[in-house]
Amino acid sequence: MNGPTPDEVVRGFITACARRDVDGAVAVLADDVEYDNVPIGKVFGPAAVRAVLTGDIFAAAAECEWVIVRQVATGPVVMNERIDRFRIGDRWLEIPVVGIFELDDGRIRLWRDYFDLGDYRQQKPDLLA
Amino acid sequence: MNGPTPDEVVRGFITACARRDVDGAVAVLADDVEYDNVPIGKVFGPAAVRAVLTGDIFAAAAECEWVIVRQVATGPVVMNERIDRFRIGDRWLEIPVVGIFELDDGRIRLWRDYFDLGDYRQQKPDLLA
Repeated sequence: MNGPTPDEVVRGFITACARRDVDGAVAVLADDVEYDNVPIGKVFGPAAVRAVLTGDIFAAAAECEWVIVRQVATGPVVMNERIDRFRIGDRWLEIPVVGIFELDDGRIRLWRDYFDLGDYRQQKPDLLA
Repeated sequence: MNGPTPDEVVRGFITACARRDVDGAVAVLADDVEYDNVPIGKVFGPAAVRAVLTGDIFAAAAECEWVIVRQVATGPVVMNERIDRFRIGDRWLEIPVVGIFELDDGRIRLWRDYFDLGDYRQQKPDLLA
């Protein structure tokens, strides 16, 4: 009965994502997880989250750092303010993000990230060029 | 010593903003408050926040509703997921927002809102036309 708290589960998940430990990340997701990358769209299920965590920006980055600036939790709901950093070549793309997580039976069943898509797009083409 | 909790202070602040009770909203701000409207920029001090709460979209709106979807708090830090709605003419502009609040001695000294500026801009010109 003494598993990790929701706060700890989310911290572990963020660490696993940034380390590209995709198996470790997906292991704490509920079977019916919803990942809502707000300005872009939603995907459902661990396999779809795995595809995001291995595609696009993650594939292009030589290194990732996801820094949790603040994290608060009430019951099964956790929110964190982060700077998600991706190193591409010798430059860092930095995205200020707020994540919302809802846990069910110790696993994440909602992961919703809010950020400014324009800011992301403005940094990305240049870095990927 | 038994003042409102940080959770209660933030709920009252959001209610006051949506009601355009600007005096009530500004009354719970610290003298050195920082309001960081992330994709747009920062302002400092209660007078500057008052100017935001009476300008632009607030001035254009006939009605405001700020719906708190989720709110969590740990110590003096509060985060909420909201839909900030502004009625302009017969249409509603709806902005999904996450707010981060840090309290000091019962007053808000940091208010930081994350949202997608492109989504906001896309809705606004049409509504204001």
